[in-house]
This record gives sequence, structure tokens and C-alpha cells, in this order.
Amino acid sequence: MSGTVRGPLAPSEAARVAFRPVGVDGVTVTGGFWAERLSVNAAVSIPEGWQQLHRAGNVGNLERAAGGGTGRAVGDIFADSDVYKWLEAAAWEIARTGDGALRERQRELTRLVASAQAEDGYLDSMVQLRGIARYSELGWTHELYCAGHLMQAAVAQVRGTGDTALLDVAVRLADHLVATFGPDGSHELDGHPEIETALVELYRETGTRAYLDLAGWFVDARGHGTVAAYGRDSTYFSDRVPVREATSVEGHAVRAVYLASGAADVAVETGDDRLLDAVAGQFASMTATKQYVTGGLGARWEGEAFGDPFELPSDRAYAESCAAIGGLQWAHRMLVATGDERYADQVERMLLNGMLPGVSLRGGEYFYVNALQVRNGAEPDDQRNPVNGRLGWFSTACCPPNIMRTLASLGAYAATTGSGDGPSLQLHQYVHGTVRAAGFVLDVETDYPRDGRVTVTVRDAPVEEAELAFRVPGWAQGATVDGASVEPGLAARRRRWTAGDRVVLDLPMEPRLIAADDRIDGIRDSVAIAAGPLVFAVEQADLPDGAEIDDLHIDPEGPLRKGEPDATLAVPTVAAAGWVHRHGPRIDPYPPAGGGAPERRSVAFRAVPYFAWANRGADAMRVWIPAR
Amino acid sequence: MSGTVRGPLAPSEAARVAFRPVGVDGVTVTGGFWAERLSVNAAVSIPEGWQQLHRAGNVGNLERAAGGGTGRAVGDIFADSDVYKWLEAAAWEIARTGDGALRERQRELTRLVASAQAEDGYLDSMVQLRGIARYSELGWTHELYCAGHLMQAAVAQVRGTGDTALLDVAVRLADHLVATFGPDGSHELDGHPEIETALVELYRETGTRAYLDLAGWFVDARGHGTVAAYGRDSTYFSDRVPVREATSVEGHAVRAVYLASGAADVAVETGDDRLLDAVAGQFASMTATKQYVTGGLGARWEGEAFGDPFELPSDRAYAESCAAIGGLQWAHRMLVATGDERYADQVERMLLNGMLPGVSLRGGEYFYVNALQVRNGAEPDDQRNPVNGRLGWFSTACCPPNIMRTLASLGAYAATTGSGDGPSLQLHQYVHGTVRAAGFVLDVETDYPRDGRVTVTVRDAPVEEAELAFRVPGWAQGATVDGASVEPGLAARRRRWTAGDRVVLDLPMEPRLIAADDRIDGIRDSVAIAAGPLVFAVEQADLPDGAEIDDLHIDPEGPLRKGEPDATLAVPTVAAAGWVHRHGPRIDPYPPAGGGAPERRSVAFRAVPYFAWANRGADAMRVWIPAR
Repeated sequence: MSGTVRGPLAPSEAARVAFRPVGVDGVTVTGGFWAERLSVNAAVSIPEGWQQLHRAGNVGNLERAAGGGTGRAVGDIFADSDVYKWLEAAAWEIARTGDGALRERQRELTRLVASAQAEDGYLDSMVQLRGIARYSELGWTHELYCAGHLMQAAVAQVRGTGDTALLDVAVRLADHLVATFGPDGSHELDGHPEIETALVELYRETGTRAYLDLAGWFVDARGHGTVAAYGRDSTYFSDRVPVREATSVEGHAVRAVYLASGAADVAVETGDDRLLDAVAGQFASMTATKQYVTGGLGARWEGEAFGDPFELPSDRAYAESCAAIGGLQWAHRMLVATGDERYADQVERMLLNGMLPGVSLRGGEYFYVNALQVRNGAEPDDQRNPVNGRLGWFSTACCPPNIMRTLASLGAYAATTGSGDGPSLQLHQYVHGTVRAAGFVLDVETDYPRDGRVTVTVRDAPVEEAELAFRVPGWAQGATVDGASVEPGLAARRRRWTAGDRVVLDLPMEPRLIAADDRIDGIRDSVAIAAGPLVFAVEQADLPDGAEIDDLHIDPEGPLRKGEPDATLAVPTVAAAGWVHRHGPRIDPYPPAGGGAPERRSVAFRAVPYFAWANRGADAMRVWIPAR
Repeated sequence: MSGTVRGPLAPSEAARVAFRPVGVDGVTVTGGFWAERLSVNAAVSIPEGWQQLHRAGNVGNLERAAGGGTGRAVGDIFADSDVYKWLEAAAWEIARTGDGALRERQRELTRLVASAQAEDGYLDSMVQLRGIARYSELGWTHELYCAGHLMQAAVAQVRGTGDTALLDVAVRLADHLVATFGPDGSHELDGHPEIETALVELYRETGTRAYLDLAGWFVDARGHGTVAAYGRDSTYFSDRVPVREATSVEGHAVRAVYLASGAADVAVETGDDRLLDAVAGQFASMTATKQYVTGGLGARWEGEAFGDPFELPSDRAYAESCAAIGGLQWAHRMLVATGDERYADQVERMLLNGMLPGVSLRGGEYFYVNALQVRNGAEPDDQRNPVNGRLGWFSTACCPPNIMRTLASLGAYAATTGSGDGPSLQLHQYVHGTVRAAGFVLDVETDYPRDGRVTVTVRDAPVEEAELAFRVPGWAQGATVDGASVEPGLAARRRRWTAGDRVVLDLPMEPRLIAADDRIDGIRDSVAIAAGPLVFAVEQADLPDGAEIDDLHIDPEGPLRKGEPDATLAVPTVAAAGWVHRHGPRIDPYPPAGGGAPERRSVAFRAVPYFAWANRGADAMRVWIPAR
């Protein structure tokens, strides 16, 4: 038995999946690295988020819409969705900790949402207030995108708290959509995918087949160039190539990965292997040619978009926090669908190095854009530019509540149960706490990813022979289980288990250097520092006086060792050595080839985990360090 | 005596300048490389541009505005400016060739412009048709930008053709602006600089001091964060830092360099050395840290903007054709103001490698964006993306007529006269033809930049001792004048000259490799091929079968020699050698460091001048070639 509280992804009994996610109470996080992050999420991010949503006007919009009629609409057209993502975060958090004050706020906000809904089920406060005809400008109005986030919040609320108030709203809205869109209805499409995955989950929760059918229809309706807005072409909207025919991802990164997640959901629920193969191919192409080493997705500010293959500049990386979240949701779905453990590696990469940098260690400041390089003297030309440091909120505030809901439901990503012979339990992400699934109760002790040891003690187990399997990450050369070498993938141990049995997994956490495909021009002849699953960054503050990040080179043959953990940041560090170039006055950046190299000065420096950068002020930084 | 037809830049007698530009008839282009380009401009670009302006609706807007009232306004808010730039091109072309048919079209269009002007002098067809309150939304309406282009066209018309019809319109509009803006009037600023340089030139033409004063006021009013539009911050509008305090360029590239040109104009007319020093510092910073090797300006698609120092990616280079034009106008002004020949090198760089790529060899297709790299498999996501090839016109068609007017007035950039003791004539750009200035009549024979020899024969000369000076470009190591070595800068020959005297300048045109400042991450460990002033590009079509541009490396120690000129393109070529990497199936772009290098296959390939790329179809291309 998995946990009793189903998480954000709960395939139906009929779904064609390799694994089944445990519920959010299937994994209880009680200590170590992740407990700190989840505590911060509960104590700072979610409460401050509630205040920010009031301050920024999102709640006010719903209040005015509840009054009926039109009126002042504050913020982005998709302002409602930020409220829904917060409601989803609250639901998972209540399930996790039983927070009573939070439950009151959740109920209050839920009542407000319900009161803003029109009699026929329609709901979108911005469109209602602005008097825009419903669904008349779907390219930019995000009505179905907001509806999707409402449905996900409603599903979270019923699963996490048992309250059905928001589910009632979501069902009425979903029924309204079923009556409006589809083969016999409107053929308009929302500019921003999200409704697809949400409708599938609502189907899973309610059993209403029409929701799954409509999700499938939306997936297949896309790719025919019907969406238009902002003067952008169909590429931007993931609307140039049908999902079944696409061989890669393109356009707006968040839109692309949300759509792919929805397609994967439809595929497993309908047993559509061809559709699943298509999105698997897109995922493989994305990770091979369009993903940063941090897991970040989206190489272009212009259109918040994927670039061409191998177009992955560090300095202008967009790598929106929401894109990493969408990416790990997609990876999680592919893991569940296929059982291929490499997808779990990707969940980890995007979780630790793609999403986590998006929130400060304190928990109340956010990055929208996650550059892998900030130059000395970079200009703060845009609110989103990381040179400004993390901000308390954004005029477009999609990322903060997206991070909140993901962290609050973290446990659901950590383990699955198998569908093969007899009970089996797979541990994909290592968190300190208790795992209850497949008849097992396991105590997991670990400070991963700050440390590589994971000790699993069986507290209870199935009576029959059963399998415990541990993810050995792809980077983990030299990993052992109980001292025996294991290869990347799932290391499975099948036997009869009894209370007190213990398995010790040791993952190699020594610092190492990562190279890059030489077609990525932006980081040619550079290396990145990693230790375990963490990618590291060098900040200006960690260079000696007079040395600038822009001039830094690493000696790839030089010493590379664990440094003293940073006590303030509570993160591991890596000590490395290299040199800085001394540049003369700036005159001709394009001298004749064959000239002498600049004078070098040796430097020792340290690196901190990329997720922890810019917690001592935002300054120049780089992940990829020239190595020649 | 300079030519009798003053060009686009004609400082007043009182201006504090080192050189004085010759007029557009001071240099007559009669053969060689440039005659071909100017013929194409006259025979194809300008006539097709006239048709395009009708087809795109710019002319129709003026027609409807001439009828009074409001109505349908077609195209960008600054649609009028494209008409004005075409009118300016026509004026210089009429001065150059006396084209009668063109003169008729020019007069017809001039009458239309005049008829659209309001009684009080106001003129902007888009604002008139759309019923926007005048100057009420200057951040985006471009009213003063359009006014500036009208003034430049009017100045060109009176100088180039003697017609005063457009000048009358411009003066009425300028008087209207003087009555509206300034210390005692409106303090609003146009989102797009251009009015500054235009008002100075109108002052130079008319002697009306109020135009110069208003230009100076606009220059100094900028930089206080007053402009707002499109949700963009003041950086975008060159409105974050006062011109006198700025140490570099930032934001929208065209806006920034247009403003700097206007500031340079104000500085020389008012003898304001502090202002001139400020823009000189900005120019130096720009060329040292924010300019492509092609002279291209603007590293970001987002905001069409300059990036941070050394942020100069090849693949997403924006390098708008208009920015190169603005840049060379600025450089030309700095040359005239200071006499520093390095500015003439920059005029040449931006002319040949920055602007000229913006138009096809046929003359009727244009690039808006001038990337230095197009990857294999790049997606044509935007009309402006070079992967689409040059297009006949754009929805935003600022670049095509900007190229037309620059080519039509090319002669004015080629030579100046000095202000020192006795007559002196400086040749800055080498064109085949006749130069008449400072009492000289010179016959210049050259096919530069296809060949390095420039033969100057004196047909007439001042009776007294006089100086002839020749620009020796910064890249020209080993240049000779009459066989004697000369250093970069101005090689001056002062003596008494008589008809039949001959001077032979030989510039070294052997292919060479250019390196880059190692802080430019996007091109680390790469080199570019050049020969003379021309930067070269390698196109996919010039690689052997099975070799892809994305995999190309050059052997920097390998052979590099002149290739056979391409007969179809009528351009020189360079033959080089290197290798392509063979890449396996795409799996992990981030392998552990220290792994083996990919397998290599040797290849020979050729390069063509960058300005000539994409004339055999647009395909993958790169200027910077990895060299390790």
C-alpha cells in the first residue's frame, strides 16, 4: 500500500504505467537537507506568498469579480493562476503538517474563488472584470491555463485535506469547458498549455471520462498554427508541429513542457504508446541538445524560449524557474510511464539545480531567470535579470507559487511502487524520513545531497518476498550498496525483509569536473564543478582581492577537493585552483591571431552549490569556467 | 573647395571640427567594387523600395491623412519614417546621377507629404489617423523620430536637388516643435532618438539657431528616466544615464547610437568639448566591449539591445542593419570632429561588414538581423531570423531605406578636407572615381576592397603647397605608399602637386586570422578569417559532403590563402583547412571532463566575404570558427 494521500500525479488503475507514485504521505521528510528546505517553504514562502497575493492585487481581483460586473483588474491577465498555485501549495502543506492556520486561509480563499464563479461555471476574474468576451482571445487570455491551475489546486485540496469545496468549483468549470470545447464545440486553443495535464488529473480524481477525452482533444488539436497573439508565430505557442510529429521541443519553454506533460498523461491513460514514444523522443532531444547542465530549460529571453540545438549561452540563459518545474513534472511522468531511471536523474537535476536556485535560502525571495553566468559590470536592465538578485515578488509572479507547490509535494516524487511480481518499492530521490509504501515502512537516514550516505532501515515489511530498489544516479561512478559496487540505474534487492534489516547506499560525492559537447559555443573549452547531484558556481565573493570572475580560469589538472562547508549557507563547498588573466586597457577586442596570451596570476578559489548562489548579495558568478 | 553639393553631414563654419566632409559630388564613384553596389542601389533597391512603400501601406497612410480626420492606419507607428528615408535616398541618388524618373517620384511623394501636414505644422500620419492626442504618448509614438527623418530628407532634397518643397514642410514642423518643446515647453521626450541629429543638420542648412538649441536641450533632457512605454525601463530608451555622464552604450542599440550622433553634432556646433569627450568615451567603450568583429551592434534580440561588456554571442547576434548605419554615422561624426583616423577604420568596418550584409547582392532583399552564426537545423521562428534568408520587405521596414540612403550618399564618407595650414585633402574610404576637393581633382583607380592597390593620379591641384593624406587602416601591417612603408593612421604627403602626379597605395590583402578577447565567451578559442577590411564567413555550401558547419574547426597553423574569386558573387574567397568532429548519437551533452576528443576528419573549405553570405540561399554559416 502506498500512502493514503494521493499526490499530484495519481494514474488511474487502468493507466499503462511502470511505476505508481506514492502519496504525499508515503514519504515523510523529518530531517536532513530537505527538511530544512520544506520548513522554510512552510514557515516563510507560503505565508509571505499569501501576503504577496493580497498586496499584488490577485485576491482583490477575485473579490471584485465576486461582486459581479466589470471593474479594475490588477496585474497580469493570468493573475488568478498564482492564487490557484498557492492554494495547491497550501493543500499539500496541510497534508504534510496539518497546519491549522493555513487551513483557515485556504478555506477563506477557496470561498472567495467559489464566489467569483459565474452561474454557468465560467471563472476567470481578469476576463470577467475587463469585460472581454469569454474565450474570444484565447491566444493571450490564459483562461484555460488558469482553469488548469484551478483544477490542480482542487485535486490537491481534496486529496490533501479532504475538503471538496474547490473540487466543486473545478468540476463546474470543467463541465463548462466540456460543453464549450472539443470536436463538436469551439476549436480555439489556449495560448498557454496547462489545461491538458490538469484535465487528466481531474479525470483521475472524479472518474469523469469527458475530462480525459477533452484533454486528449486539446493535445491533438495543437500543432496546426491556430493560436495567434502578441504578434508571435506558432512556434512560440507549441503550435507549429502536432505533438505526435514533433521530434524536439521549441518555442516558449514553459508552454512546451507543460504540453508534453499533458500528452504523457493522456498517453498512459489511453494506452497510447505512439503518443508516449513521441514525447519520449522529444524529451531525449531536449536533454541532449537544449538543456543546461543545471537542468535549466530555455536559452532565450526573447519569447522565454528554447533555442536551436546547442544554443545554450550561460550569460543570457533564461532557464525560468517554472520551466524547470514543468520539466521535472514531465520527467516524473516519463519515469512513472516507462520505469526508465534516467528520468529520475532528470527529476533530481531539475529539482536541485533547476528549481531550487529559484528561491532564496531564507525562502522569501525568488529568481524568475536562472542565468549560469553574471558578468562583472552587468546591468540590471530588467526586473527578471539575476543581477538584481532574488526579489520578493514579480509583476509576473508565476514562479514563486510554482516553487511552493512543488516543494510542498516533494515527497510524492521520492518513491514509487512497482507493478511487477509481488511488492516492490523504488526510492528515486533520497530524503531523510519515513517511507510507507508497498507494505514497507522504512526509516531513511541521510543528509543527501550534502552527504552521499543513505541508510535505510526496515521498520516493517511485506510478509512475502519483496523488492527494494535504489536509484543509482548516472553520475555515480563507484556507488555501492552494502559495500558492493552498483551500476547506474535501479539497484534492486529482492528477498524477504524483516524489521531491523538495513541497507546502506553510498554515493560518491567527491568533487568532479564536467565537460560539455563542443557544439555548445557559449561554453567552449570550459568545465563545470559538480559534487554528487549538485552543480556548483563560483561567485565573485569567493575570489581573492583583485581577481574578477570575468577573468577566471580553472586548472583542470589542478587540485579539486571538498572545502569546509559554509556554515552560514549550510552547504558544502569545493576548493579549486586556476588563474586570472590580467587584461590591459580595453582597446581592440579583435587582435591578430597568434598574439601572446594575457599574463596570468594564480588564484585559489571556492565554489558553492549553484542553488545557493546569490544568498550573500547578487554579484558576478559563473558555473562554466574556462579551462585553457 | 569641396564639392558643391553638401552631403548629409555639413558642419557650420563655426563648428569646432578637425575635418570637413566633401559634398556628395566631391567624390564621384565611376568604377570598381563600389560602383557595382551603387548601381544596384539605384537600379533595384530604390525603385523596388518605392513599390514596397506603396504595397505596405506607408504611402496610403499619408494619402488618408492628407484628407484630414482619422481613419485606417497601416503598419508600424513609425511608418512615415520609412517614406522619409526613401525620400532622402532619392535625393542623394538624384544628386549622384540626375535620375529624371526618380525626381518625378520624389516630387510626387513630396507633394503628398506636404499635403498631409496640419495647418500649424504638425505632421505624423499615423498619429493623425489614429486620433491619438499629439505628443501624448511620445514613449512609443515616434513622432519626433519621424520628424527627424523628415528633416534629414528635406536637407538632402535641398542639397541634392535644389528643391525646397520638403524643406518648407520640415521648417514648419521644426518651428512647431520649437514652440512645443524645450525648457519653457513640454518636457516629454521621444522614445526613439533621431530628432537631435536632424535638428542640428536643419540648423546647419537654415541657420535657425533655435533648432540647434532644441537639439541641445533634447540631448541634455535625456537620462533622467522620463520615457516610458512597452513596459520597458529607461535603459532601453537611452534614458537611464545623462549623455554627459554615460561611460558606455546600453539599451536599444539604434536608439543609443542615434542619440550619440546627435550629441556629437551638438558638441561640435556649440564647441562643447566636455560633451564630445563624453561621447568619445562611450564610443571607445562600445568598440572595445560591445561590438562584433563585423562592426555589428546589439547583442540581444530582447529589446534589440546592447548586452553587457563582452556579451557578444554569434548565434543570437542581433546586429541590426540600422544599428551599423547609426554606428557609422556616429563614427563619421567623430572622425570629422577629432581627426582621429581610427574612426574612419570604424566607418569602413561598419559599412562593409555591418551594413552591406543587410542587402542582397541583387539589391532587393534585406536582413534586419545580422547573425554571425546560423546553426544546422536552426528554426525560422521569426521573420527577422537570418535563417529565413533576406526578405523583400519587413513588417518593420526601417532597415531597407536606411541602407538605400547610406549607399546613395556614400561619396560623402570617402574624403574630407583639412582645416590646418594650406589646402589638404584626406582620403578615408577608397572608391574608384574622381575626387574634387581642396583645389584637387584626383582620379582614383581601385577595386578595393577586392584588391589592395589604390592609384591616385592628380588631374588638377592647388597652386600652393598642399597635402594629400591617405588612410592606412589599423589592420594594414605592411602597407606602402609609393613603395615606402607606412604606419596605420593618416599617411600624409605635403608638397606642390602638378597634373599627372601619381601616388600608389598598396594595402596588404592576404588572408589573415583574427583572434578575440578571451572574455567573449561565445567565441572562445575561435578565430575569424579576414582579408583587408573584409570579414569572411564559411557557409554550409562551401563544406564537403557530409561535413556540417556545427562541427567545423579550423587549423590555425594550416594553409590560408586567397582562393579563386567567386565569379557569380563577384567576390574574393579564402581557402582554409581544418577538420570536422564526428559526433555520436546525441545522448549526454555534459560528460565527465577528461574524456577523449571526438574523432576528426580533415576538410578543406572556403570562405566568402560576410557581406556576400546567404546569396546562394540561406543556410548554416559561421564567422568565428573553433580553432582547437
